[in-house]
Amino acid sequence: MSADLPDFEHLVPEGDSVTRAVCRRCGFINYQNPKIVVGSVVRADGGILMCRRAIEPRSGYWTLPAGYLEQHETPEDGARREAQEEACAEIAIDALLAVYSIPRLSQVQLIYRARLASDYAPGPESREVEVFAWEAIPWPDLAFPSVHWALRHEREAAANGGAPFANPDGTSGGIMPDGGPWGGEE
Amino acid sequence: MSADLPDFEHLVPEGDSVTRAVCRRCGFINYQNPKIVVGSVVRADGGILMCRRAIEPRSGYWTLPAGYLEQHETPEDGARREAQEEACAEIAIDALLAVYSIPRLSQVQLIYRARLASDYAPGPESREVEVFAWEAIPWPDLAFPSVHWALRHEREAAANGGAPFANPDGTSGGIMPDGGPWGGEE
Ligand SMILES: [Zn+2]
Ligand SMILES: [Zn+2]
Repeated sequence: MSADLPDFEHLVPEGDSVTRAVCRRCGFINYQNPKIVVGSVVRADGGILMCRRAIEPRSGYWTLPAGYLEQHETPEDGARREAQEEACAEIAIDALLAVYSIPRLSQVQLIYRARLASDYAPGPESREVEVFAWEAIPWPDLAFPSVHWALRHEREAAANGGAPFANPDGTSGGIMPDGGPWGGEE
Repeated sequence: MSADLPDFEHLVPEGDSVTRAVCRRCGFINYQNPKIVVGSVVRADGGILMCRRAIEPRSGYWTLPAGYLEQHETPEDGARREAQEEACAEIAIDALLAVYSIPRLSQVQLIYRARLASDYAPGPESREVEVFAWEAIPWPDLAFPSVHWALRHEREAAANGGAPFANPDGTSGGIMPDGGPWGGEE
Protein backbone atom coordinates (compact mmCIF):
# COMPACT_ATOMS: atom_id res chain seq x y z
CA MET A 1 0.00 0.00 0.00
CA SER A 2 1.34 3.41 -0.98
CA ALA A 3 2.38 5.67 1.88
CA ASP A 4 0.16 8.31 0.26
CA LEU A 5 -3.10 6.40 0.51
CA PRO A 6 -5.61 7.49 3.13
CA ASP A 7 -5.26 5.33 6.23
CA PHE A 8 -8.72 5.08 7.73
CA GLU A 9 -9.54 4.18 11.32
CA HIS A 10 -13.06 3.92 12.69
CA LEU A 11 -14.03 6.28 15.48
CA VAL A 12 -16.68 8.77 16.56
CA PRO A 13 -15.52 12.30 15.61
CA GLU A 14 -16.02 15.08 18.16
CA GLY A 15 -19.59 16.38 18.05
CA ASP A 16 -20.75 13.38 16.07
CA SER A 17 -22.75 10.43 17.37
CA VAL A 18 -21.81 7.73 14.89
CA THR A 19 -18.63 5.87 13.98
CA ARG A 20 -16.94 7.25 10.86
CA ALA A 21 -13.88 6.31 8.83
CA VAL A 22 -11.32 8.99 9.69
CA CYS A 23 -7.89 9.23 8.04
CA ARG A 24 -5.08 8.73 10.59
CA ARG A 25 -2.79 10.89 8.44
CA CYS A 26 -4.85 14.03 7.90
CA GLY A 27 -8.16 13.75 9.74
CA PHE A 28 -10.24 13.61 6.55
CA ILE A 29 -13.67 12.15 7.46
CA ASN A 30 -15.07 9.77 4.87
CA TYR A 31 -18.82 10.03 5.49
CA GLN A 32 -20.51 6.87 4.32
CA ASN A 33 -24.16 7.14 3.50
CA PRO A 34 -26.67 4.51 2.57
CA LYS A 35 -27.10 4.26 -1.17
CA ILE A 36 -30.24 4.78 -3.19
CA VAL A 37 -30.94 2.28 -5.95
CA VAL A 38 -33.47 3.37 -8.56
CA GLY A 39 -35.02 1.01 -11.07
CA SER A 40 -38.13 0.04 -12.93
CA VAL A 41 -40.38 -2.82 -13.90
CA VAL A 42 -40.97 -2.01 -17.56
CA ARG A 43 -44.03 -3.44 -19.29
CA ALA A 44 -43.77 -4.07 -23.02
CA ASP A 45 -46.25 -5.94 -25.24
CA GLY A 46 -47.69 -7.76 -22.25
CA GLY A 47 -44.25 -8.81 -21.08
CA ILE A 48 -41.55 -7.44 -18.77
CA LEU A 49 -38.23 -6.04 -19.97
CA MET A 50 -35.29 -7.80 -18.32
CA CYS A 51 -31.50 -7.58 -18.62
CA ARG A 52 -28.98 -10.40 -18.31
CA ARG A 53 -26.06 -9.04 -16.36
CA ALA A 54 -22.64 -8.81 -18.02
CA ILE A 55 -20.90 -7.70 -14.81
CA GLU A 56 -20.38 -8.93 -11.27
CA PRO A 57 -22.07 -9.43 -8.93
CA ARG A 58 -24.37 -12.08 -10.38
CA SER A 59 -23.03 -11.90 -13.90
CA GLY A 60 -25.16 -14.04 -16.22
CA TYR A 61 -28.29 -13.68 -14.09
CA TRP A 62 -31.39 -11.71 -14.99
CA THR A 63 -32.31 -8.40 -13.44
CA LEU A 64 -34.41 -5.27 -13.92
CA PRO A 65 -32.87 -2.03 -15.18
CA ALA A 66 -31.66 -0.44 -11.95
CA GLY A 67 -28.61 1.19 -10.43
CA TYR A 68 -27.34 3.85 -8.06
CA LEU A 69 -28.92 7.26 -8.06
CA GLU A 70 -26.38 9.94 -8.96
CA GLN A 71 -25.83 13.33 -7.37
CA HIS A 72 -28.39 16.01 -8.31
CA GLU A 73 -30.65 13.48 -10.00
CA THR A 74 -34.30 12.84 -9.20
CA PRO A 75 -35.19 9.16 -8.63
CA GLU A 76 -37.37 9.17 -11.75
CA ASP A 77 -34.56 10.62 -13.87
CA GLY A 78 -32.23 7.99 -12.41
CA ALA A 79 -34.60 5.16 -13.27
CA ARG A 80 -34.89 6.48 -16.85
CA ARG A 81 -31.09 6.78 -17.11
CA GLU A 82 -30.57 3.21 -15.92
CA ALA A 83 -33.08 1.87 -18.48
CA GLN A 84 -31.17 3.79 -21.15
CA GLU A 85 -27.74 2.58 -19.95
CA GLU A 86 -28.60 -1.07 -19.40
CA ALA A 87 -31.26 -1.70 -22.04
CA CYS A 88 -30.85 1.23 -24.48
CA ALA A 89 -34.52 1.81 -23.75
CA GLU A 90 -36.67 4.85 -23.27
CA ILE A 91 -39.35 4.35 -20.68
CA ALA A 92 -42.42 6.23 -19.48
CA ILE A 93 -42.74 6.09 -15.71
CA ASP A 94 -46.23 5.56 -14.28
CA ALA A 95 -45.89 5.41 -10.49
CA LEU A 96 -43.80 4.22 -7.58
CA LEU A 97 -44.09 0.43 -7.30
CA ALA A 98 -42.05 -0.25 -4.17
CA VAL A 99 -39.62 1.03 -1.56
CA TYR A 100 -37.32 -1.79 -0.46
CA SER A 101 -34.72 -1.62 2.28
CA ILE A 102 -31.65 -3.84 2.39
CA PRO A 103 -29.93 -2.76 5.61
CA ARG A 104 -27.12 -5.30 5.31
CA LEU A 105 -26.01 -3.48 2.16
CA SER A 106 -27.12 -0.03 3.40
CA GLN A 107 -29.40 0.20 0.37
CA VAL A 108 -32.79 1.74 -0.16
CA GLN A 109 -34.41 0.84 -3.46
CA LEU A 110 -37.06 2.94 -5.21
CA ILE A 111 -38.67 0.86 -7.95
CA TYR A 112 -41.09 2.38 -10.46
CA ARG A 113 -43.77 0.96 -12.73
CA ALA A 114 -43.02 1.96 -16.31
CA ARG A 115 -43.87 1.28 -19.95
CA LEU A 116 -41.41 0.71 -22.78
CA ALA A 117 -41.35 3.67 -25.18
CA SER A 118 -38.65 2.65 -27.69
CA ASP A 119 -36.69 -0.28 -29.04
CA TYR A 120 -34.21 -1.97 -26.75
CA ALA A 121 -30.76 -3.56 -26.95
CA PRO A 122 -28.04 -4.60 -24.49
CA GLY A 123 -26.02 -1.74 -23.00
CA PRO A 124 -22.40 -2.28 -21.87
CA GLU A 125 -23.46 -3.86 -18.55
CA SER A 126 -25.91 -6.32 -20.14
CA ARG A 127 -25.31 -9.50 -22.16
CA GLU A 128 -28.88 -9.70 -23.37
CA VAL A 129 -32.07 -7.72 -23.03
CA GLU A 130 -35.35 -9.51 -23.52
CA VAL A 131 -39.09 -9.05 -23.00
CA PHE A 132 -40.48 -12.04 -21.12
CA ALA A 133 -44.10 -13.05 -20.80
CA TRP A 134 -44.86 -13.76 -17.13
CA GLU A 135 -44.68 -17.54 -17.60
CA ALA A 136 -41.37 -17.27 -19.45
CA ILE A 137 -39.54 -15.20 -16.81
CA PRO A 138 -36.34 -17.10 -15.89
CA TRP A 139 -37.27 -17.44 -12.20
CA PRO A 140 -34.37 -19.70 -11.21
CA ASP A 141 -31.90 -17.29 -12.78
CA LEU A 142 -32.88 -13.98 -11.20
CA ALA A 143 -29.97 -11.93 -9.92
CA PHE A 144 -31.31 -10.62 -6.61
CA PRO A 145 -34.16 -11.22 -4.15
CA SER A 146 -35.51 -7.73 -4.82
CA VAL A 147 -35.97 -8.67 -8.50
CA HIS A 148 -38.35 -11.41 -7.30
CA TRP A 149 -40.11 -8.96 -5.03
CA ALA A 150 -40.54 -6.30 -7.70
CA LEU A 151 -41.87 -8.75 -10.29
CA ARG A 152 -44.41 -10.16 -7.82
CA HIS A 153 -45.40 -6.70 -6.68
CA GLU A 154 -45.83 -5.55 -10.29
CA ARG A 155 -48.16 -8.50 -10.81
CA GLU A 156 -50.10 -7.58 -7.67
CA ALA A 157 -50.25 -3.87 -8.56
CA ALA A 158 -51.53 -4.69 -12.05
CA ALA A 159 -54.24 -6.95 -10.62
CA ASN A 160 -55.29 -5.17 -7.42
CA GLY A 161 -53.39 -1.90 -7.06
CA GLY A 162 -51.91 -1.30 -3.62
CA ALA A 163 -48.55 0.10 -4.68
CA PRO A 164 -46.14 1.12 -3.35
CA PHE A 165 -45.10 -2.01 -1.53
CA ALA A 166 -42.34 -2.54 1.02
CA ASN A 167 -40.16 -5.60 1.65
CA PRO A 168 -42.24 -8.78 1.85
CA ASP A 169 -42.72 -9.77 5.52
CA GLY A 170 -39.63 -11.22 7.11
CA THR A 171 -37.26 -10.44 4.25
CA SER A 172 -34.27 -8.15 4.26
CA GLY A 173 -32.83 -8.98 0.85
CA GLY A 174 -29.83 -10.73 2.30
CA ILE A 175 -29.17 -13.64 0.00
CA MET A 176 -30.60 -15.29 -3.07
CA PRO A 177 -33.57 -17.56 -2.55
CA ASP A 178 -33.49 -21.29 -3.00
CA GLY A 179 -37.12 -21.52 -3.80
CA GLY A 180 -39.98 -19.57 -2.28
CA PRO A 181 -41.37 -16.63 -4.17
CA TRP A 182 -39.97 -14.05 -1.76
CA GLY A 183 -36.47 -15.39 -1.42
CA GLY A 184 -34.79 -17.14 1.48
CA GLU A 185 -33.19 -15.21 4.28
CA GLU A 186 -30.15 -15.52 6.48
CA MET B 1 -4.53 24.13 4.57
CA SER B 2 -2.35 21.32 5.84
CA ALA B 3 -0.10 19.66 3.27
CA ASP B 4 -1.56 16.37 4.50
CA LEU B 5 -5.18 17.12 3.62
CA PRO B 6 -6.67 15.35 0.63
CA ASP B 7 -6.51 17.59 -2.44
CA PHE B 8 -9.54 16.75 -4.52
CA GLU B 9 -9.94 17.47 -8.21
CA HIS B 10 -13.05 16.60 -10.20
CA LEU B 11 -12.66 14.17 -13.07
CA VAL B 12 -14.12 10.99 -14.57
CA PRO B 13 -12.08 8.00 -13.33
CA GLU B 14 -11.18 5.31 -15.87
CA GLY B 15 -14.08 2.89 -16.36
CA ASP B 16 -16.51 5.29 -14.69
CA SER B 17 -19.09 7.49 -16.40
CA VAL B 18 -19.54 10.24 -13.87
CA THR B 19 -17.35 13.00 -12.44
CA ARG B 20 -15.88 12.12 -9.02
CA ALA B 21 -13.72 13.95 -6.52
CA VAL B 22 -10.32 12.28 -6.82
CA CYS B 23 -7.36 13.14 -4.56
CA ARG B 24 -4.47 14.59 -6.57
CA ARG B 25 -2.00 13.23 -4.02
CA CYS B 26 -2.99 9.58 -3.74
CA GLY B 27 -5.83 8.82 -6.15
CA PHE B 28 -8.38 8.16 -3.41
CA ILE B 29 -11.88 8.46 -4.97
CA ASN B 30 -14.41 10.15 -2.74
CA TYR B 31 -17.68 8.69 -4.03
CA GLN B 32 -20.48 11.10 -3.29
CA ASN B 33 -23.94 9.62 -3.13
CA PRO B 34 -27.27 11.31 -2.77
CA LYS B 35 -28.43 11.30 0.82
CA ILE B 36 -31.57 9.76 2.24
CA VAL B 37 -33.50 11.84 4.74
CA VAL B 38 -36.00 9.92 6.88
CA GLY B 39 -38.64 11.61 8.99
CA SER B 40 -42.18 11.50 10.22
CA VAL B 41 -45.36 13.47 10.68
CA VAL B 42 -46.31 12.42 14.19
CA ARG B 43 -49.93 12.76 15.28
CA ALA B 44 -50.58 13.34 18.99
CA ASP B 45 -53.90 14.27 20.63
CA GLY B 46 -55.23 15.62 17.37
CA GLY B 47 -52.15 17.74 16.84
CA ILE B 48 -48.79 17.36 15.11
CA LEU B 49 -45.46 17.03 16.93
CA MET B 50 -42.98 19.66 15.79
CA CYS B 51 -39.44 20.63 16.80
CA ARG B 52 -37.91 24.10 16.87
CA ARG B 53 -34.39 23.79 15.54
CA ALA B 54 -31.45 24.59 17.80
CA ILE B 55 -28.89 24.16 15.01
CA GLU B 56 -28.16 25.61 11.59
CA PRO B 57 -29.43 25.64 8.95
CA ARG B 58 -32.69 27.38 9.88
CA SER B 59 -32.01 27.51 13.60
CA GLY B 60 -35.10 28.82 15.41
CA TYR B 61 -37.51 27.57 12.75
CA TRP B 62 -39.95 24.70 13.13
CA THR B 63 -39.50 21.31 11.53
CA LEU B 64 -40.57 17.68 11.73
CA PRO B 65 -38.34 15.03 13.34
CA ALA B 66 -36.12 14.01 10.43
CA GLY B 67 -32.49 13.47 9.54
CA TYR B 68 -30.04 11.41 7.55
CA LEU B 69 -30.44 7.67 7.34
CA GLU B 70 -27.40 5.91 8.78
CA GLN B 71 -25.54 2.90 7.42
CA HIS B 72 -27.26 -0.48 7.96
CA GLU B 73 -30.46 1.17 9.10
CA THR B 74 -33.92 0.66 7.64
CA PRO B 75 -35.79 3.90 6.83
CA GLU B 76 -38.41 3.10 9.49
CA ASP B 77 -35.70 2.55 12.12
CA GLY B 78 -34.08 5.81 11.04
CA ALA B 79 -37.35 7.73 11.37
CA ARG B 80 -37.86 6.29 14.86
CA ARG B 81 -34.28 7.18 15.83
CA GLU B 82 -34.69 10.77 14.65
CA ALA B 83 -37.92 11.18 16.66
CA GLN B 84 -36.03 9.88 19.69
CA GLU B 85 -33.00 12.13 19.11
CA GLU B 86 -34.84 15.35 18.31
CA ALA B 87 -38.00 15.02 20.39
CA CYS B 88 -37.13 12.30 22.94
CA ALA B 89 -40.25 10.63 21.58
CA GLU B 90 -41.21 7.08 20.80
CA ILE B 91 -43.40 6.80 17.74
CA ALA B 92 -45.45 4.09 16.05
CA ILE B 93 -45.09 4.23 12.28
CA ASP B 94 -48.24 3.68 10.22
CA ALA B 95 -47.28 4.04 6.56
CA LEU B 96 -45.18 5.92 4.05
CA LEU B 97 -46.58 9.42 3.60
CA ALA B 98 -44.31 10.80 0.88
CA VAL B 99 -41.17 10.43 -1.20
CA TYR B 100 -39.72 13.86 -1.93
CA SER B 101 -36.74 14.59 -4.14
CA ILE B 102 -34.55 17.67 -3.77
CA PRO B 103 -32.02 17.26 -6.57
CA ARG B 104 -30.26 20.56 -5.83
CA LEU B 105 -29.24 19.08 -2.47
CA SER B 106 -28.95 15.49 -3.79
CA GLN B 107 -31.55 14.48 -1.24
CA VAL B 108 -34.34 11.93 -1.29
CA GLN B 109 -36.73 12.19 1.63
CA LEU B 110 -38.85 9.32 2.92
CA ILE B 111 -41.52 10.70 5.26
CA TYR B 112 -43.76 8.43 7.31
CA ARG B 113 -47.11 8.86 9.01
CA ALA B 114 -46.76 8.05 12.70
CA ARG B 115 -48.43 8.32 16.11
CA LEU B 116 -46.83 9.54 19.33
CA ALA B 117 -46.30 6.68 21.78
CA SER B 118 -44.57 8.42 24.71
CA ASP B 119 -43.90 11.78 26.31
CA TYR B 120 -41.69 14.23 24.46
CA ALA B 121 -39.02 16.81 25.25
CA PRO B 122 -36.37 18.72 23.30
CA GLY B 123 -33.32 16.69 22.28
CA PRO B 124 -29.92 18.36 21.83
CA GLU B 125 -30.76 19.62 18.33
CA SER B 126 -34.11 21.15 19.35
CA ARG B 127 -34.92 24.30 21.35
CA GLU B 128 -38.53 23.33 21.87
CA VAL B 129 -40.82 20.46 21.01
CA GLU B 130 -44.53 21.11 20.85
CA VAL B 131 -47.76 19.52 19.66
CA PHE B 132 -49.65 21.97 17.48
CA ALA B 133 -53.29 21.83 16.48
CA TRP B 134 -53.54 22.38 12.70
CA GLU B 135 -54.65 26.01 13.08
CA ALA B 136 -51.80 26.73 15.51
CA ILE B 137 -48.98 25.41 13.32
CA PRO B 138 -46.43 28.24 12.95
CA TRP B 139 -46.71 28.36 9.14
CA PRO B 140 -44.54 31.46 8.63
CA ASP B 141 -41.77 29.90 10.71
CA LEU B 142 -41.36 26.50 9.07
CA ALA B 143 -37.76 25.50 8.42
CA PHE B 144 -38.00 23.93 4.95
CA PRO B 145 -40.39 23.69 1.99
CA SER B 146 -40.68 19.94 2.51
CA VAL B 147 -42.08 20.57 6.00
CA HIS B 148 -44.93 22.46 4.32
CA TRP B 149 -45.37 19.66 1.83
CA ALA B 150 -45.45 16.91 4.44
CA LEU B 151 -47.93 18.74 6.68
CA ARG B 152 -50.28 19.38 3.74
CA HIS B 153 -49.92 15.80 2.54
CA GLU B 154 -50.63 14.47 6.04
CA ARG B 155 -53.81 16.52 6.02
CA GLU B 156 -54.75 15.14 2.61
CA ALA B 157 -53.90 11.55 3.58
CA ALA B 158 -55.99 11.81 6.74
CA ALA B 159 -58.96 13.15 4.77
CA ASN B 160 -58.78 11.24 1.47
CA GLY B 161 -55.92 8.73 1.55
CA GLY B 162 -53.73 8.76 -1.52
CA ALA B 163 -50.34 8.43 0.20
CA PRO B 164 -47.55 8.26 -0.62
CA PHE B 165 -47.23 11.61 -2.32
CA ALA B 166 -44.35 13.04 -4.34
CA ASN B 167 -43.16 16.64 -4.65
CA PRO B 168 -46.04 19.01 -5.33
CA ASP B 169 -46.15 19.92 -9.04
CA GLY B 170 -43.43 22.29 -10.08
CA THR B 171 -41.49 22.22 -6.82
CA SER B 172 -38.00 20.99 -6.20
CA GLY B 173 -37.54 22.13 -2.60
CA GLY B 174 -35.01 24.76 -3.52
CA ILE B 175 -35.74 27.66 -1.24
CA MET B 176 -38.14 28.68 1.46
CA PRO B 177 -41.49 29.95 0.32
CA ASP B 178 -42.63 33.53 0.68
CA GLY B 179 -46.25 32.62 0.68
CA GLY B 180 -48.04 29.88 -1.23
CA PRO B 181 -48.74 26.61 0.49
CA TRP B 182 -46.22 24.64 -1.55
CA GLY B 183 -43.32 27.03 -1.31
CA GLY B 184 -41.77 29.32 -3.88
CA GLU B 185 -39.17 28.05 -6.28
CA GLU B 186 -36.01 29.34 -7.87
ZN1 LIG C 1 -5.48 11.51 4.86
ZN1 LIG D 1 -4.99 11.65 -0.91
